[in-house]
Amino acid sequence: LLDTLHHSCQWGAAHRYGPQPTQTGMARLSLDANDAKVRAWMAREAEAVGCRTVVDGVGNQFFIRPGDRADAAPTAMGSHMDTQPTGGRYDGILGVVAGLEVMRTLHHRGLRTRYPLALVNWTNEEGARFPRSLAGSAVWAETLPLDQAWSLKDVNDPSITLRDALVEARMLGTHCDHRSLPLAAHFELHIEQGPILEQRDKRIGVVLGGQAYKWFDVEISGMECHTGSTPYEYRADALLCASRIIVEATLMAKEVGALASTGIIEARPGSVNTCPGTVRMTIDVRHARSDVVADLCQRIRARSAVLGRGTGDRHCTVRWDQTFESDAATFDPACIEAIRDVAVATVGSDRVLDMYSGAGHDSFSTSLRCPTGMIFVPSRDGISHNPSEFTEPEHW
Amino acid sequence: LLDTLHHSCQWGAAHRYGPQPTQTGMARLSLDANDAKVRAWMAREAEAVGCRTVVDGVGNQFFIRPGDRADAAPTAMGSHMDTQPTGGRYDGILGVVAGLEVMRTLHHRGLRTRYPLALVNWTNEEGARFPRSLAGSAVWAETLPLDQAWSLKDVNDPSITLRDALVEARMLGTHCDHRSLPLAAHFELHIEQGPILEQRDKRIGVVLGGQAYKWFDVEISGMECHTGSTPYEYRADALLCASRIIVEATLMAKEVGALASTGIIEARPGSVNTCPGTVRMTIDVRHARSDVVADLCQRIRARSAVLGRGTGDRHCTVRWDQTFESDAATFDPACIEAIRDVAVATVGSDRVLDMYSGAGHDSFSTSLRCPTGMIFVPSRDGISHNPSEFTEPEHW
Ligand SMILES: NC(=O)NCCC(=O)O
Ligand SMILES: NC(=O)NCCC(=O)O
Repeated sequence: LLDTLHHSCQWGAAHRYGPQPTQTGMARLSLDANDAKVRAWMAREAEAVGCRTVVDGVGNQFFIRPGDRADAAPTAMGSHMDTQPTGGRYDGILGVVAGLEVMRTLHHRGLRTRYPLALVNWTNEEGARFPRSLAGSAVWAETLPLDQAWSLKDVNDPSITLRDALVEARMLGTHCDHRSLPLAAHFELHIEQGPILEQRDKRIGVVLGGQAYKWFDVEISGMECHTGSTPYEYRADALLCASRIIVEATLMAKEVGALASTGIIEARPGSVNTCPGTVRMTIDVRHARSDVVADLCQRIRARSAVLGRGTGDRHCTVRWDQTFESDAATFDPACIEAIRDVAVATVGSDRVLDMYSGAGHDSFSTSLRCPTGMIFVPSRDGISHNPSEFTEPEHW
Repeated sequence: LLDTLHHSCQWGAAHRYGPQPTQTGMARLSLDANDAKVRAWMAREAEAVGCRTVVDGVGNQFFIRPGDRADAAPTAMGSHMDTQPTGGRYDGILGVVAGLEVMRTLHHRGLRTRYPLALVNWTNEEGARFPRSLAGSAVWAETLPLDQAWSLKDVNDPSITLRDALVEARMLGTHCDHRSLPLAAHFELHIEQGPILEQRDKRIGVVLGGQAYKWFDVEISGMECHTGSTPYEYRADALLCASRIIVEATLMAKEVGALASTGIIEARPGSVNTCPGTVRMTIDVRHARSDVVADLCQRIRARSAVLGRGTGDRHCTVRWDQTFESDAATFDPACIEAIRDVAVATVGSDRVLDMYSGAGHDSFSTSLRCPTGMIFVPSRDGISHNPSEFTEPEHW
């Protein structure tokens, strides 16, 4: 499994942080050239151990291993092979290659199962290239119309749509969703991406559900002015306004135990001695309860309008555009129990922790359509979305 | 003069804001293709009215009109033709074309002067393309070594140096400075770029001197992390730290009547669900007294280190790199008096205001080497470094 994981990371390895061959992070953005290569490799490997490949209209790859009941819905293991621009070797990747390892083990031991099994590589889970996380699994779950997914634009080159990228990667298959390709259940092994398991000295997290979150594009329009000859009261500095929003959103989120974060910011025109007239930025708001997220977003939004008004004569206007939302997810009690039982049998009950997921996962999408459960393993120092992401092989 | 001004703006017109042909701003960055064209045009126009052209090693254009005393130093009128990326039609341009108008008037009336006159188009005044404002005049004044000016890098394409751009624009002449090409005096007509004249209903500002300022590149290094699964206390969010620095620098500057502004910010890696690990930004600090600027910069810098340390376990480090400084400028009493006398005679003493310049100008450089004075005219709504920059022709 360890060898397979690192082998698969030859496509997209980036951001070296140490001398060992595997001491790099990843930059394998959804459907880029490296993602196309690792997808082709995945299909070869899965087919070599008796799976047939189905690619759907949004590029989700399903590798299906027949069961005795040929026409029954397969029980799936799924996650994603795409990464953040400065991502690591474990986020998503571990879950998919672990599923491949299961397929190989069954094959090499000549084991048959009553029902079919599937391994799924969901498309554009990260939302890092096409700004909609869980896009592939959401199309399958019918919470995102295929057309809308297709028209998502590459964040770095808006002339490329997700559909263009599917064609380019030779990954545009025939549309199928949870109705035409139902899954009997979906299990996902994933790194925690946070510090909790490590801090509490646990080995396996049994995931009960996950945080709700909303994403926004926020555009702040002020007025360009000269940094030297414009007294503060005559300014409408879009970047000063954006900075205040970021600082206050953080404080407001802390007050209710939520998270508010800005990952992308762009200020124009971008000149040392011109106060920016326009800022575009993202805001990501999360909490375990959907209503807390909704309420907090409302309040940050209202506060941002007040901050835009500032103290002087000139005002910034703040426009909010919600680009994504994911309700709090609740996993299936039977799946949770199955995972907990095996976890306890493997590492002992004192190393197993029931917990919620901070990050969104494709399992949030599948949980709407089939019984779903997730298995978390520790992230060293709680680090994720970073090249130095690491999980001890002993913790898998 | 009005026609000449707008004629010269055909090269680099951009950012339309109204239906009239002249209702656009400018994007004529130093030594770009449009700047090369307007420079060639300037030379033709100046030569057509009896000037000879000297281009120095940093591309400053001197258009020299002989006087009766052929070997004496010329009395100069100078400003700049380069603009901000979202600049207007008046900043710098007005001063140069006004000087051309003077040359034309003298020529058409067949007037001779005792001493030579010069019109100067200083290179890269804005510092918008090559991040060092007043670069051309500083080379002339020997406060910036030619080699250092040559090695300045295009902010958008660091593979291009200022020297490359000089060659490309055919503007690499023979080095001459205040010693080999002395000026007897330097007068600059410029828009105020601020709201004071308009607010006080004045027509002409007699500039006594100008603010000191310093520019910094600030790099904040934290750690990329997942926006959903990383509690605040485990974050080292470089953008949150940058935002706090921007907000607090503003407050600290306000306290002492100074200005602190951020014009450029870049956050990496730039993904909605990854807290930025690195932010690079500029800070521009100004005050009429050089010692107040120096002290405030020290304090903002110290405060930024504290903000970097944050409240949690993980810290951001903040690295400051001073890229530019300009001491407070004091203009020549005789030049000031000459300007005041003519201003009062022209518009009456109640429409004339003694004032200081908020922005840096090439006259700051020349004031170190020859008697210098500046004439300010009002900026509508105090707007500058913005396409809608406007000055009533009646106010020239
Ligand atoms: N696990 C993960 O990084 N998912 C991406 C969606 C999110 O931002 O939570
Ligand atoms: N006048 C003007 O915009 N000068 C550029 C230098 C400065 O930033 O003050």
